[in-house]
Amino acid sequence: MSRFFSRNFASLTPYTPGEQPKARQFVKLNTNESPFPPAPGVAVAVAEQAGKLQLYSDPEIAALRARLAETYGVTPGQVICVNGSDEVLNFAFMAFADEKSPLAFPDLTYGFYPVFAQLNRIPYEQIPLMDDFSINAEDYTGINKTIVIANPNAPTGLYLPLSEIEGIVASNPDNVVIIDEAYIDFGGESAISLVSKYDNLLVTQTFSKSRSMAGARLGFGIGSEKLIADLNTIRYSTNPYNVNRMTEAAGVAALDDTAYFEANCRTIMENRAWTTKALEALGFTVLPSMANFVFAKTDAIDGGTLYAKLKERGILVRHFTKDRIRDFNRITIGTLDQMKTLVCAIEAILKEVQP
Amino acid sequence: MSRFFSRNFASLTPYTPGEQPKARQFVKLNTNESPFPPAPGVAVAVAEQAGKLQLYSDPEIAALRARLAETYGVTPGQVICVNGSDEVLNFAFMAFADEKSPLAFPDLTYGFYPVFAQLNRIPYEQIPLMDDFSINAEDYTGINKTIVIANPNAPTGLYLPLSEIEGIVASNPDNVVIIDEAYIDFGGESAISLVSKYDNLLVTQTFSKSRSMAGARLGFGIGSEKLIADLNTIRYSTNPYNVNRMTEAAGVAALDDTAYFEANCRTIMENRAWTTKALEALGFTVLPSMANFVFAKTDAIDGGTLYAKLKERGILVRHFTKDRIRDFNRITIGTLDQMKTLVCAIEAILKEVQP
Repeated sequence: MSRFFSRNFASLTPYTPGEQPKARQFVKLNTNESPFPPAPGVAVAVAEQAGKLQLYSDPEIAALRARLAETYGVTPGQVICVNGSDEVLNFAFMAFADEKSPLAFPDLTYGFYPVFAQLNRIPYEQIPLMDDFSINAEDYTGINKTIVIANPNAPTGLYLPLSEIEGIVASNPDNVVIIDEAYIDFGGESAISLVSKYDNLLVTQTFSKSRSMAGARLGFGIGSEKLIADLNTIRYSTNPYNVNRMTEAAGVAALDDTAYFEANCRTIMENRAWTTKALEALGFTVLPSMANFVFAKTDAIDGGTLYAKLKERGILVRHFTKDRIRDFNRITIGTLDQMKTLVCAIEAILKEVQP
Repeated sequence: MSRFFSRNFASLTPYTPGEQPKARQFVKLNTNESPFPPAPGVAVAVAEQAGKLQLYSDPEIAALRARLAETYGVTPGQVICVNGSDEVLNFAFMAFADEKSPLAFPDLTYGFYPVFAQLNRIPYEQIPLMDDFSINAEDYTGINKTIVIANPNAPTGLYLPLSEIEGIVASNPDNVVIIDEAYIDFGGESAISLVSKYDNLLVTQTFSKSRSMAGARLGFGIGSEKLIADLNTIRYSTNPYNVNRMTEAAGVAALDDTAYFEANCRTIMENRAWTTKALEALGFTVLPSMANFVFAKTDAIDGGTLYAKLKERGILVRHFTKDRIRDFNRITIGTLDQMKTLVCAIEAILKEVQP
């Protein structure tokens, strides 16, 4: 830390992203990327913009917002686009939480929530998950706090039915409830259908996973027009040109190819079912996932060792060192070939440790 | 404003970007974009990334940082890359200013500074420019505040020699001095040469103007490794994947083509000299600019009217309504053809108003 660093952030612990190895080729199952390239139209749309980069991007991001509004059955005024959904989460924390409206979120969830809370100096409560790692909706009923729930949750993959989400939103009418749906396209039902009914609901999604665009950085939020206007006050006070030309065009092209999107989501769900079964056959406990990853453990080998041994074999998964989940690894669902490689490697590792 | 908006931001006035017209084709001299497309290598580099967008970008942005370090004679640890230089300015305000280290910047300068200050709830002092719109370096000598100076300044285009910048940096050793060099490549001398001598100096630059990449969103900051580490603490607590794959590759390709970059800067400087002379011949006062724009006024027509009449004729310039500068317009330097179109239009407008 330099001697100039503001005491406001002296104790801030930044988020740690998953490894992004540069040198060695890995079977990369650690950051929940899609194994499929973006829709074929994306490259065409990007190329068209590459020669026009001397001109600023549209600060209203109008073309993409219109396309998203159409896709999700809302108005363009109900949509904000951002440089990855982390950005809209940060904006929403700033806009809708403070000392008067402190935050509440699960103790095991996306690791960025406590970081955003600390960054913005917002008090927060971490509500423990149940013993089976599920979220107990009752813990969030009428609590008068700004609530953030990842649904499906990370790193567990567990999904809360829409009726329970609605109960949480309805019972906290004076606070914003943020539903982070980064993984919703792999079998869950989106809460976007509720935004016209509840003025306190903000749903965030991303193009990083189901639309194969993690490297383009594109997320969005959908809520009432007033909530979105507040988020735009923050956006226009931070970075009005937050979404660049190439990414906006890529987003429109990705939305245009519904068939490709749906086929990829279906494949991931099939591969998830295959992987779950294969890991269970090897003696693993696998939480029932609605995301593009599974969270799994076995008594035969501890989570950290399995992670390290897989890495030695060229396979990256994500291991967290928090006490309650250190036995687990979070494994991204890739192609069937990748999952077969993973399962074979695990089989071999298990033979090593229990000969 | 929704009923949920935090009182922290209730009085926040966002930044107003220049018009980005969608429908009509304008001669667009209002947002200081380059009239030239990006270097030819940029499109190739972008196309190579477009098929790999399913993978996250590199949170360390290592390739681009290495290339910038080489270009500017510093270490990669002295470089931070951001989603447009607005982002590094916001990060620097957060990191290096607070109630103990309030901000100071000119009263007429980049309009985002007071917005960032308000956003981050940092007290700030706006130090009046001199009567000739220049910055008086003495006003910033030993003031024990976190200082931000755009050099050349906007919207005036006036440039402070490096020796005066050094005086300000040297006389405020316990505060960070941020030199915003968005327009430095059009004739000025960068303060990057001083970062190894002063641990309190942060220089920010952008690819938006001289490198024709406004629509790609790429800026950077250069300072001591400790300052940069602090800025990365903020970046990793905000958006570690802030620079997307396409933009990083575009940045490397732009830096690779020095000849193209230098030729474009030279042309803009030549066209600036031509435009200045032509406007002076029409009776305008033109501030001596070292940027890719000129700031000009005439007694024959007020600034707002000239702006409106130019817009009617399909030419966009930027007019500000602040009292002290409402007589002026800020005119981006484009191609010689564009500048001739502008000058002809102004000539015709002047004939209309003073027949």
